[in-house]
Amino acid sequence: MLKRYIPLLEWRKTYHRSTFNSDLLAALIVTIMLIPQSLAYAMLAGLPPEIGLYASILPLIAYSLFGTSSTLSVGPVAVVSLMTAAAIATLELGSMEQKIAAAIALAFISGVLLLAMGFFKLGMLANFLSHSVISGFISAAGLIIAASQVPHLLGLNSGGHNLLQIGDSLYRQIQHIHYPTLALAIFTLVLLIWVRHSLVSLLLNIGIKATLAANLAKTGPIFAIISTIVITWWFSLDVIGVKVVGNIPQGLPTLALPTFNSDLWQSLFSAALLISIIGFIESVSVAQTLAAKRRERIDPNQELIGLGAANIGSAISGGLPVTGGFSRSVVNFDAGAKSPAAGAYAALGIALSCVLLTPLIYFLPRATLAATIIIAVLSLIDIKALYRTWQYSRADFAAMSVTILATLLDSIELGIMLGVSLSIALFLYRTSKPHSALVGLLAGSEHFRNIDRHDVLTSSTMLTLRVDESLYFANARYLEDRVYDLVAQHPQIKHFVLMCPAINDIDASALESLESINSRLTDSGVLFHLSEVKGPVMDKLKTSHFSTQLSGEVFLSQYDAWQALSGAPIK
Amino acid sequence: MLKRYIPLLEWRKTYHRSTFNSDLLAALIVTIMLIPQSLAYAMLAGLPPEIGLYASILPLIAYSLFGTSSTLSVGPVAVVSLMTAAAIATLELGSMEQKIAAAIALAFISGVLLLAMGFFKLGMLANFLSHSVISGFISAAGLIIAASQVPHLLGLNSGGHNLLQIGDSLYRQIQHIHYPTLALAIFTLVLLIWVRHSLVSLLLNIGIKATLAANLAKTGPIFAIISTIVITWWFSLDVIGVKVVGNIPQGLPTLALPTFNSDLWQSLFSAALLISIIGFIESVSVAQTLAAKRRERIDPNQELIGLGAANIGSAISGGLPVTGGFSRSVVNFDAGAKSPAAGAYAALGIALSCVLLTPLIYFLPRATLAATIIIAVLSLIDIKALYRTWQYSRADFAAMSVTILATLLDSIELGIMLGVSLSIALFLYRTSKPHSALVGLLAGSEHFRNIDRHDVLTSSTMLTLRVDESLYFANARYLEDRVYDLVAQHPQIKHFVLMCPAINDIDASALESLESINSRLTDSGVLFHLSEVKGPVMDKLKTSHFSTQLSGEVFLSQYDAWQALSGAPIK
Repeated sequence: MLKRYIPLLEWRKTYHRSTFNSDLLAALIVTIMLIPQSLAYAMLAGLPPEIGLYASILPLIAYSLFGTSSTLSVGPVAVVSLMTAAAIATLELGSMEQKIAAAIALAFISGVLLLAMGFFKLGMLANFLSHSVISGFISAAGLIIAASQVPHLLGLNSGGHNLLQIGDSLYRQIQHIHYPTLALAIFTLVLLIWVRHSLVSLLLNIGIKATLAANLAKTGPIFAIISTIVITWWFSLDVIGVKVVGNIPQGLPTLALPTFNSDLWQSLFSAALLISIIGFIESVSVAQTLAAKRRERIDPNQELIGLGAANIGSAISGGLPVTGGFSRSVVNFDAGAKSPAAGAYAALGIALSCVLLTPLIYFLPRATLAATIIIAVLSLIDIKALYRTWQYSRADFAAMSVTILATLLDSIELGIMLGVSLSIALFLYRTSKPHSALVGLLAGSEHFRNIDRHDVLTSSTMLTLRVDESLYFANARYLEDRVYDLVAQHPQIKHFVLMCPAINDIDASALESLESINSRLTDSGVLFHLSEVKGPVMDKLKTSHFSTQLSGEVFLSQYDAWQALSGAPIK
Repeated sequence: MLKRYIPLLEWRKTYHRSTFNSDLLAALIVTIMLIPQSLAYAMLAGLPPEIGLYASILPLIAYSLFGTSSTLSVGPVAVVSLMTAAAIATLELGSMEQKIAAAIALAFISGVLLLAMGFFKLGMLANFLSHSVISGFISAAGLIIAASQVPHLLGLNSGGHNLLQIGDSLYRQIQHIHYPTLALAIFTLVLLIWVRHSLVSLLLNIGIKATLAANLAKTGPIFAIISTIVITWWFSLDVIGVKVVGNIPQGLPTLALPTFNSDLWQSLFSAALLISIIGFIESVSVAQTLAAKRRERIDPNQELIGLGAANIGSAISGGLPVTGGFSRSVVNFDAGAKSPAAGAYAALGIALSCVLLTPLIYFLPRATLAATIIIAVLSLIDIKALYRTWQYSRADFAAMSVTILATLLDSIELGIMLGVSLSIALFLYRTSKPHSALVGLLAGSEHFRNIDRHDVLTSSTMLTLRVDESLYFANARYLEDRVYDLVAQHPQIKHFVLMCPAINDIDASALESLESINSRLTDSGVLFHLSEVKGPVMDKLKTSHFSTQLSGEVFLSQYDAWQALSGAPIK
């Protein structure tokens, strides 16, 4: 029982010195990457930088106990931080203390929801979001995040949670651009882009191994941070108005349960649910991609528990909502992490930083963090996906564009809600006409084929309609219409057979439709028969009155029906 | 073109004297039935009685021009009147003039929506409401309607739009029961129940034909009305406090376009949409039931246009929203109506009543109308449906109970919204695990069967998964999980074949999953193949990158795949 929920008890048995060494190396590289990300994503969420560090200690340890991925790197990530910022903004809180309390509450509720979904195996809730909606949402979120950081690059106050608000806020302040900040920002951007695009080949040229070179290149942000800290300190740029991170508390976070506030929790509930689901989907898809490369398996429902524990861990140590991050996890994987323990070691790295490095961050310019965020989120924006989806499916394209537009122009919640509603509506619409065909007998065989595409025998007194999909409320009425039309077009028929070899389920609405078909056909003097009904479907039908009301018979095979009902077949 | 939208142009060609005679007789009986219903349902909607009469003239003529059912009787109906009352109540209007204007606006918007749905062939919108939701909703609406009329029986002021509000309002007034009204109400109820249960056998005993007897019994309310009018007038019951209909304007309604009021129309929009869809579903199911008995066909999209025209007709002649009513249509059918013209003749009957009979209605007690409504709506309440649905399908039962509870305890809108959401969610949940099976070769044949149920040949290097349903966003992730699990369980395999004979569609999410499966299997050294892909699905796949990325092949038949990949088969 305990092993079922704590994978650690399983994998520790095979934990050896070599695994430990691999994990430790990976943890070191991840720590270097995680420090700037933690600071930046806390700022993106509208919170003090140390909150990001706090969210990168206990959550990693909690995930390493309960998670199933050996390489997932949990912590603050861009999209979830944006969602956190938006959720806190709707509360219109005055003080930073209140905002921190709201972020902690958000992490806590989100953690509880994830745990509950895990215990009740509700990982399938994520299935409601089609890939098009998620992909559109992530692109739109990436754009909003990038846009929201532009004011920081210009030394302005950022504001707004959709493109319109951000644009409006920028427009009002545009004459106050702080050029020293802008210069520093441009320096950082150029540095980051150079690291990303040219450092790898440089490192390869000086003889460093390809994997190590790629991973070193991904630690670029730490160099940007170190160099801009030095520049700012050296030239006292903070004195001339370059905004810096400033004093942040030195030492480890204090542990405390979040204080319960029913109004606050209620107003955060739907945002927490959305954060949980989006965070879960992001995290699981990263974890699955990496696990597949080693033919390992992750368990999505146990992942819910792992992420739930991580968020509760974040909440009780004063952090914001967390989930598995893509870039960090890939680095963790490439650097050779062999078990969830690597995450716990990275947590120790961040804890050490909290104790030792926080004074050094005083001169870190906010513009540097903004530039780091912008470069990081550009990879989220996938314009080509729009084109690909347009080519493949107009319905998915519609869902994707609606999600993107509503997210960009209104809010994350509206974007996802409209996208989900539209994709479900379009799916129901597509399935509202079940594939079906009138069939006849292939002469000299016992096979029945579509009369429009094959030269088959038909009967003057019976019609057979083969339905190729399960029957449910969205397509039941169409079936009714189809049957009534067919019977009205063939006034001479006495028997109507519904051939059901591909029907896996009949819901109560479809049952009602079958009952209507039965009684209306009976009223017009036609007997209604079924053939080739699957076993489980027949068992279910037997629990209803339909099987006793049926005016005709249930034939095991369509050929039996044909022999009993067709009379003199016509060619 | 004109014939397409005006069925009248078609059926008038075959209109003869005998058809005219049948229609006229049916119209007479329907008129007698429609008068009390019009008055009562206007009162149910919280409007003056004449509004009900106005809604029974022009709408019938409009429907006879544009409708496709030869027997549907359009006019005020109970459920739609309840929905009208609820919609008007939310506006919190002061004067009766404003309420009438709101009812007219509601009819107009509803008419325009129905016309639009008809032109754009959106009759399928009704498919979103599963039978369980509709059935639960109608039962709950019937209960609320009956409860809302109880105060009228007791001579109290009615109030409230859910059971809690109605109960509360009753409780506060209970000491003010007006006993003469109650006595009259009991007399009316007894009379109505006697007519419904015993009049038929009495009429049969005195030698009247069965159909005529049944129809005469359905005109019971008119006798209740006449007798209570006489009693009230004779004993001057209005003087001692029995509430009567009172003065109503004599003459025909004046025609006028509803005045446009953007605030009012906006706040009525969602209620009008719900009224349109519920009214349409009710009406079409009645029309279809009756049409099937004569092997006639109705056209659901043209019905939208017919009902749209009827509602616009109601609006411009000062009436409330209308739709096809069940009991009246059955009477119309039984009485021998042969064409939509019967409806137009009934309209003339109501118009005549407006001119001649309105003074006689002065003494009609409101308690009589309330009793008429209660007896009429009792047939809407279908408790057994709950039991039947429980037996057949727990998911449908859940959707039905949620609809009933939310409608009874909160509001019509919430009931339908929750019911629809839940039924869609449960459907997606049920389909989130597509039927699939590992298959092997049936020795000595080219057929492949489930390895768990048949004694088949399998291969040590290939696995074949047959999927029995179309792939879309709700089941794509499950398929991914299934494939990764299978590959992790069979570390020796080199080939994975997805057998697709039953896949009718692959949406963009499922395509993405197939791409993930392909790239992850490739990462773990397994080639991914497809077999027996249907033509249209293959055409669609070819528009995507997937077909070029696929690490394996697409085999026309599973047997081809087997021959190419299985190596040495094992038993």
